Amino acid sequence: MSKVVTFGEVMLRLSTPNHSRFVQSTQFNATYGGGEANVAVSLAQLGIRSAHVTRFPDNELGKAATHQLRGYGVDTDAIVFGGHRMGLYFLETGSSVRPSKIIYDRAGSSFSDITPDMLNWDEILEGADWFHWTGITPAISRGAADCCKKAIEVANKKGITVSGDINYRKNLWQYGKKASEIMPDLIAGCDMLVASTHDAEDILGIKVQNSPNKEMEVFQQIITRFPKVKKIVTTKRGSISASHNTLTGHLYNGSEMMKTEVFEVNPIVDRIGGGDAFIAGVIYGQLVYKNDQKSIDFGVAASILKHTIECDANLATVDEVENLMSGNTSGKIIR
Amino acid sequence: MSKVVTFGEVMLRLSTPNHSRFVQSTQFNATYGGGEANVAVSLAQLGIRSAHVTRFPDNELGKAATHQLRGYGVDTDAIVFGGHRMGLYFLETGSSVRPSKIIYDRAGSSFSDITPDMLNWDEILEGADWFHWTGITPAISRGAADCCKKAIEVANKKGITVSGDINYRKNLWQYGKKASEIMPDLIAGCDMLVASTHDAEDILGIKVQNSPNKEMEVFQQIITRFPKVKKIVTTKRGSISASHNTLTGHLYNGSEMMKTEVFEVNPIVDRIGGGDAFIAGVIYGQLVYKNDQKSIDFGVAASILKHTIECDANLATVDEVENLMSGNTSGKIIR
Amino acid sequence: MSKVVTFGEVMLRLSTPNHSRFVQSTQFNATYGGGEANVAVSLAQLGIRSAHVTRFPDNELGKAATHQLRGYGVDTDAIVFGGHRMGLYFLETGSSVRPSKIIYDRAGSSFSDITPDMLNWDEILEGADWFHWTGITPAISRGAADCCKKAIEVANKKGITVSGDINYRKNLWQYGKKASEIMPDLIAGCDMLVASTHDAEDILGIKVQNSPNKEMEVFQQIITRFPKVKKIVTTKRGSISASHNTLTGHLYNGSEMMKTEVFEVNPIVDRIGGGDAFIAGVIYGQLVYKNDQKSIDFGVAASILKHTIECDANLATVDEVENLMSGNTSGKIIR
Amino acid sequence: MSKVVTFGEVMLRLSTPNHSRFVQSTQFNATYGGGEANVAVSLAQLGIRSAHVTRFPDNELGKAATHQLRGYGVDTDAIVFGGHRMGLYFLETGSSVRPSKIIYDRAGSSFSDITPDMLNWDEILEGADWFHWTGITPAISRGAADCCKKAIEVANKKGITVSGDINYRKNLWQYGKKASEIMPDLIAGCDMLVASTHDAEDILGIKVQNSPNKEMEVFQQIITRFPKVKKIVTTKRGSISASHNTLTGHLYNGSEMMKTEVFEVNPIVDRIGGGDAFIAGVIYGQLVYKNDQKSIDFGVAASILKHTIECDANLATVDEVENLMSGNTSGKIIR
Amino acid sequence: MSKVVTFGEVMLRLSTPNHSRFVQSTQFNATYGGGEANVAVSLAQLGIRSAHVTRFPDNELGKAATHQLRGYGVDTDAIVFGGHRMGLYFLETGSSVRPSKIIYDRAGSSFSDITPDMLNWDEILEGADWFHWTGITPAISRGAADCCKKAIEVANKKGITVSGDINYRKNLWQYGKKASEIMPDLIAGCDMLVASTHDAEDILGIKVQNSPNKEMEVFQQIITRFPKVKKIVTTKRGSISASHNTLTGHLYNGSEMMKTEVFEVNPIVDRIGGGDAFIAGVIYGQLVYKNDQKSIDFGVAASILKHTIECDANLATVDEVENLMSGNTSGKIIR
Amino acid sequence: MSKVVTFGEVMLRLSTPNHSRFVQSTQFNATYGGGEANVAVSLAQLGIRSAHVTRFPDNELGKAATHQLRGYGVDTDAIVFGGHRMGLYFLETGSSVRPSKIIYDRAGSSFSDITPDMLNWDEILEGADWFHWTGITPAISRGAADCCKKAIEVANKKGITVSGDINYRKNLWQYGKKASEIMPDLIAGCDMLVASTHDAEDILGIKVQNSPNKEMEVFQQIITRFPKVKKIVTTKRGSISASHNTLTGHLYNGSEMMKTEVFEVNPIVDRIGGGDAFIAGVIYGQLVYKNDQKSIDFGVAASILKHTIECDANLATVDEVENLMSGNTSGKIIR
Repeated sequence: MSKVVTFGEVMLRLSTPNHSRFVQSTQFNATYGGGEANVAVSLAQLGIRSAHVTRFPDNELGKAATHQLRGYGVDTDAIVFGGHRMGLYFLETGSSVRPSKIIYDRAGSSFSDITPDMLNWDEILEGADWFHWTGITPAISRGAADCCKKAIEVANKKGITVSGDINYRKNLWQYGKKASEIMPDLIAGCDMLVASTHDAEDILGIKVQNSPNKEMEVFQQIITRFPKVKKIVTTKRGSISASHNTLTGHLYNGSEMMKTEVFEVNPIVDRIGGGDAFIAGVIYGQLVYKNDQKSIDFGVAASILKHTIECDANLATVDEVENLMSGNTSGKIIR
Repeated sequence: MSKVVTFGEVMLRLSTPNHSRFVQSTQFNATYGGGEANVAVSLAQLGIRSAHVTRFPDNELGKAATHQLRGYGVDTDAIVFGGHRMGLYFLETGSSVRPSKIIYDRAGSSFSDITPDMLNWDEILEGADWFHWTGITPAISRGAADCCKKAIEVANKKGITVSGDINYRKNLWQYGKKASEIMPDLIAGCDMLVASTHDAEDILGIKVQNSPNKEMEVFQQIITRFPKVKKIVTTKRGSISASHNTLTGHLYNGSEMMKTEVFEVNPIVDRIGGGDAFIAGVIYGQLVYKNDQKSIDFGVAASILKHTIECDANLATVDEVENLMSGNTSGKIIR
Repeated sequence: MSKVVTFGEVMLRLSTPNHSRFVQSTQFNATYGGGEANVAVSLAQLGIRSAHVTRFPDNELGKAATHQLRGYGVDTDAIVFGGHRMGLYFLETGSSVRPSKIIYDRAGSSFSDITPDMLNWDEILEGADWFHWTGITPAISRGAADCCKKAIEVANKKGITVSGDINYRKNLWQYGKKASEIMPDLIAGCDMLVASTHDAEDILGIKVQNSPNKEMEVFQQIITRFPKVKKIVTTKRGSISASHNTLTGHLYNGSEMMKTEVFEVNPIVDRIGGGDAFIAGVIYGQLVYKNDQKSIDFGVAASILKHTIECDANLATVDEVENLMSGNTSGKIIR
Repeated sequence: MSKVVTFGEVMLRLSTPNHSRFVQSTQFNATYGGGEANVAVSLAQLGIRSAHVTRFPDNELGKAATHQLRGYGVDTDAIVFGGHRMGLYFLETGSSVRPSKIIYDRAGSSFSDITPDMLNWDEILEGADWFHWTGITPAISRGAADCCKKAIEVANKKGITVSGDINYRKNLWQYGKKASEIMPDLIAGCDMLVASTHDAEDILGIKVQNSPNKEMEVFQQIITRFPKVKKIVTTKRGSISASHNTLTGHLYNGSEMMKTEVFEVNPIVDRIGGGDAFIAGVIYGQLVYKNDQKSIDFGVAASILKHTIECDANLATVDEVENLMSGNTSGKIIR
Repeated sequence: MSKVVTFGEVMLRLSTPNHSRFVQSTQFNATYGGGEANVAVSLAQLGIRSAHVTRFPDNELGKAATHQLRGYGVDTDAIVFGGHRMGLYFLETGSSVRPSKIIYDRAGSSFSDITPDMLNWDEILEGADWFHWTGITPAISRGAADCCKKAIEVANKKGITVSGDINYRKNLWQYGKKASEIMPDLIAGCDMLVASTHDAEDILGIKVQNSPNKEMEVFQQIITRFPKVKKIVTTKRGSISASHNTLTGHLYNGSEMMKTEVFEVNPIVDRIGGGDAFIAGVIYGQLVYKNDQKSIDFGVAASILKHTIECDANLATVDEVENLMSGNTSGKIIR
Repeated sequence: MSKVVTFGEVMLRLSTPNHSRFVQSTQFNATYGGGEANVAVSLAQLGIRSAHVTRFPDNELGKAATHQLRGYGVDTDAIVFGGHRMGLYFLETGSSVRPSKIIYDRAGSSFSDITPDMLNWDEILEGADWFHWTGITPAISRGAADCCKKAIEVANKKGITVSGDINYRKNLWQYGKKASEIMPDLIAGCDMLVASTHDAEDILGIKVQNSPNKEMEVFQQIITRFPKVKKIVTTKRGSISASHNTLTGHLYNGSEMMKTEVFEVNPIVDRIGGGDAFIAGVIYGQLVYKNDQKSIDFGVAASILKHTIECDANLATVDEVENLMSGNTSGKIIR
């Protein structure tokens, strides 16, 4: 069985129940999530061995977060403990025309203080087939960026497939470096990227005139510039309302732009982590189907199912995703 | 006022709250339900006297189930107590493209150990106008099948109208008999059937070539073979998603196939018991309207309302069903 | 900053959670609301100073209601305490084709026993720019009607803008006077009305033949009869189901009938108070934009957002309303 | 099996969850209870047939209250529907040195408008062995007092045992009559009374000097004055805190004052209805044991168990009460 | 009516429900509290005008905290908004021998970044009679300490009574200054102190040999050294378990050590804020009773009641505190 | 680090919330527990590596149970899947004089169908230091007894310490064998036993006359008869009420009867699993302290803490247990 290792911050998510507003909430639902850990949890539900690497405070919240990841079957042995606090985010879940709102509270977290000496990537990546990171990690702190770079280097040395989700969020980059200074080095070590044309423009300065082929041209430029990158995947989301979305997946393999059908979800139970579920699905497809079209079909179906599950990570099984991927959207009771 | 008697197992239903998945649930919502008892509860809300016959364990769960039925106005005097356990089912409520899931846990239940000597049908059916059973009961155990047969015989002798809902579920028949060996005898005692063309094929071996009239031909064959059967009703469900369904009702009276308009429900609050609510509505129509078209119109409207109510049985009143049946789908606040 | 004063009864609202029916509910959610107070709360969220005037029983429920209003930023200094009980209403929240149901229980409330000597309108309205009342208040009791009249007189004397929401509910008028005897005097003191053609017919006896211009003709007749009235606003609601509505706003300024685009909400979280949110939005528009078209645009957008928030009053901010008003219905996550 | 009929108002009880204060509560727990109905529910749990007579509004709350009583096995066939509203009370549950607080809201209830013509006591009491009323009923309204008197007269005529719980609450008597004018007539028809020396002084004007025998002397005077009264029972409560109470029962049979041991409960889950549980227990003892000492022993044990159960009525079984009555206070798990 | 101003951080408190452990919690109860704001809230419930001064982030959490304080009747007009985050603390509520646990997460909070230029104490303290601060504030940051000092200076100049609760927590002092360097200046401006002998030793270096009079001697030394200080109050807590405590209050007025009786609470609902409730009670006593013995009697009774209420602040009224203060610990239902 | 392996059934526990009775419950809290797994979970919280061996149905409930064990850090790799159903038990949590009630529903569970060929004990026990079983396992089925015997044999062969908790429950032995026929063989392979004098009499036929030394004499007879057994531990529980218990631990080492002090817990949050927490604590003491007196001291302190935690297993840490063991019962807040 393949093994996937992910690296990144995990936050305590405090969400208002029943679509209530922040000011109305006398309770918060509590789960733990983060872009990379969500991929690890999703893969574990799909039967892929996964391990997540992060840093938690050495208190009950750090233990509770570990407890949740481990419960979902993620190997937590490489998690390190220390630092000052658990990163948090507060979520107000929207409905219909009212958007969800997130208040991040992650400054000074245990993860943001991570440094390369805290992690032995040689050991951690031993036996792994795939390493996944996202652009959120190098945005958090210099230390986190350095750890990420080290992990990619070790993975490359060991011949482990590397995927990176660019996921550019400008306001995260607060430690004195720009994404355009840090990211190219990391991207250079990747076999597969998750990227949008916006990401490419913002981080890599790739500008292409509007045309029906714009996306393909951008992706081709990326591949030309970073020869290790073989495939670029992305999703197109149609936001009809906070409760009703459509989704398609694209994959460019250097010659062909493959696309999925348009999938739809209505009503949405939980929008958070939809992108992470897609990536986990694509990684599953690459590892198991070894087929690009099926990878994005599976990824989009997985992502759509994620929208019906309350928490950051996709808890769907292979059967469930394949059922939806085959076009069965009827939702008929399974007895 | 008419009186309807129903017979069948009642299970403790343990459902995950707020669409959460089984693995996420630290709580289950608890109610009691079963295909036949759901009909009795629905009829009681519609102002029809109803009694349910079943067997419960002689413990607090059996008492709680009786408490619930009695609270809804169902006569529980004929319920017997004994045996080993309450049958259960676990329900994960789906949403959008994610289907609901049911895990049955009813083997060895107090009801499955029922035997004809435990019930005095002559007394139980005294004063009744209608007896209703479903194909789930004879599937559970030989004893349950024997009780069901005995009830039908007594009802026939007393001139009580008998309705049976075929509701064929192959994996329930585990005690050494096939449905095709047991069901024909029971069907023979019925005045009205709830059946689908699949049921007819699976249980009665009736096969008809696909054609626009297929359903009518199947139903005619049933009526020909079982001369006591005068009417066959069924529903057609359109499953757009787990949250969005359409429904029509059909009634064949031996000469004419009547159909209702297409009703729609979105979002669905609780899909379970939709069929039972339909049958209760049809029985109400037969007893009160004494009109076939109005019976299925009322039945489908009742079923649609059931989808908006969380529990197995339809808690709608006659006013509410008639309001919807008259085409008022606006959902405007009633003050 | 402008200041708006509202006057009317505030009730304890006891609603069944999770769309459950009354008979199923072992819990009720509790908030406090009333047509006029909802306007005050909404305006406070929009940054407008607001004060609400009412009468509560001098017990913990009266204190809790005051606590809630004050928490939302409404000035509660003019609230008086005394009388026998808190008015209540019970709410069963519908879904899809099942309507919501309200059981009012407000007879004999502390507010219904209010008399003009309990309130010093000269002081209360000192410094106010706008006074708002609804037709529910004069319907409750002679004392409440007298207080309302006195308030309008004082407001008129002080040159404060007065708006009245006719909101005719026939079954409320139980104290021996008809609406047609009381309302004209109150309407005569208004600068702006919220009214429908039905209200005009029922209360003012204005009858106009059906035609595409019927509404405008009715409104013109009102303005002709009540020369102080300069503007009449109203909404048109499309009730597709209890979960899915559309809304447009109209404003007649004596010469022109302005209309908004059709806004849509699906699913509805809480339908109660949609009209009050509209009025609060229109008042905001009159005070801040000083533009009629923008007033109703803002009002309808505010009302639509209200439908996504569980409680009687609109808790949306100016940013949120303006975002929707500008046509952004995508509900994309705000980070 | 014996049958007991009770008569009195049933209110919707709205209690704050988890000991929270009124001002903190965004939810209320909802059950239905009333002094006399609590006796009927308790007796039904003890296996005694019971019926309750009351009047409810003809709305969903009246149906829900009926549903609850019927669920607990109480015959609800004699309940009448009509009038304006459900009586309510709000309960804030105290803890330790903080007392519980009750806000009554029962004025104008459907029960308070009851009149003798609404009830056919001849039919209602047919087949009954015992009739129970309390002093709350004649305090509510003239109509309620008249109904109570009529019931006692019919019971006396039919030779049915009558018990009355004086339960004098001065502030309830608001309709122009004093308890001392109404109660003696009702007491005169009783075979058993629940009374305290305070009740006797306040209502009957019986004053006795303080002495160790004061209670017995007071009870003797009552019995002398009302020759039909054969037994008077009462409890002595030791209130150590809102969470910790002791209880003893006394029964005077005209010659001897019997007493129980001192029972203790800590912590108290729900103090409401402790007295009603005692009376139900005493009635059980009179009907089943036909032994005065065992009656009060059973009554006090039943009352103590009630304090551990959240709702107005005692849900304990005969086995449970007898186990405690025998001195087993260990609370060891029953498997 | 007197007016009290308090100054200090308010944190979002996230507590596990029903005594569950951190690792078990999928929900947190959310309220807002802080040592000084708790005093303001308590005083508002006691009918004393109070205002709280703090700094919140300019987001929905800051608004929700303001909403809560304002709801409880605290004047929030002087609160300033800005900075990075809301300070938090996580609370696991213990029971019996299991202690409660607090995880603070307040580093980098909006309050910790406060500077004197953000607050205009001259305006804020205009019309105030009393200013209260605690030793937590100067421990948080240099800016907070400076603000506190400025407030005391202005209060002294205006002749406003100043109280300070030493409340020394060593691990809070992280910004490079020791308590012994900062606190004496602040203490020097106080009229009343809350202090323990430990505080005196740790911060002021006052060491006195053990003796029955040790506390009085320590307090006398403080008063000698800080001549503005006229009274020192303190409590003695007996911790029998997390659920069962006793409490006495002491007040030294420079000549006499007054003591209260020993009060007891069992079970404790919420231990947090017990000390703040005591101080609020003492301030109430000073302002209203103007009597030292009654002040501490009232303070301890208030504190004990606080232990029965779930949240940081005491929500008891004057009637409730006086009832307990008079020795009524019976917890009898108030109807 | 030491490693402990446990073997036995894990059931889904469905408990009524807030001390409600079964008939009142519309929700059940859901956790998973079993006598042996509770030991494994407790040890994992104490930092001891533990693995649990059991059999679950191959459905979502089996996965959820595995998820919970794994989350708490228990190695679940040796769990096998198959069979028909998850064993259950229903729990009504008592209070004060009202006992808790358990309804077992474990017949026909996946675990009861286990057979020795399903488990490879050689592999499972590789690297283990301790194996623990209880008398519940051999009582469930012949297959379970055989598996248990096999495990003990392999453990003995590998030199692994074996502990067995006799825990005799007569009504569990339903498969045709008596405990006295099966248990001696299993006991013979143990190094440490948990036993009471009742167990010894019922299963081993050891009868000793009452005397102050009775327990020691019984234990000596056991040790004489089973020479591998070196130590016997037991607890004495004082059941003051369902909410208030005392506990002492005894350990007989073949020559000396050691005893702990009497520990007390009031109020009890959750009594279930108190014995398992004791055993886990004793095993911890044996492995880490290697001291008998400290083992039972730690075991009893651990057990007492368990009573304050809602779930079957003890979630206390070594620090917490040692703090209580050292006599600190004050429950003071830990910040």
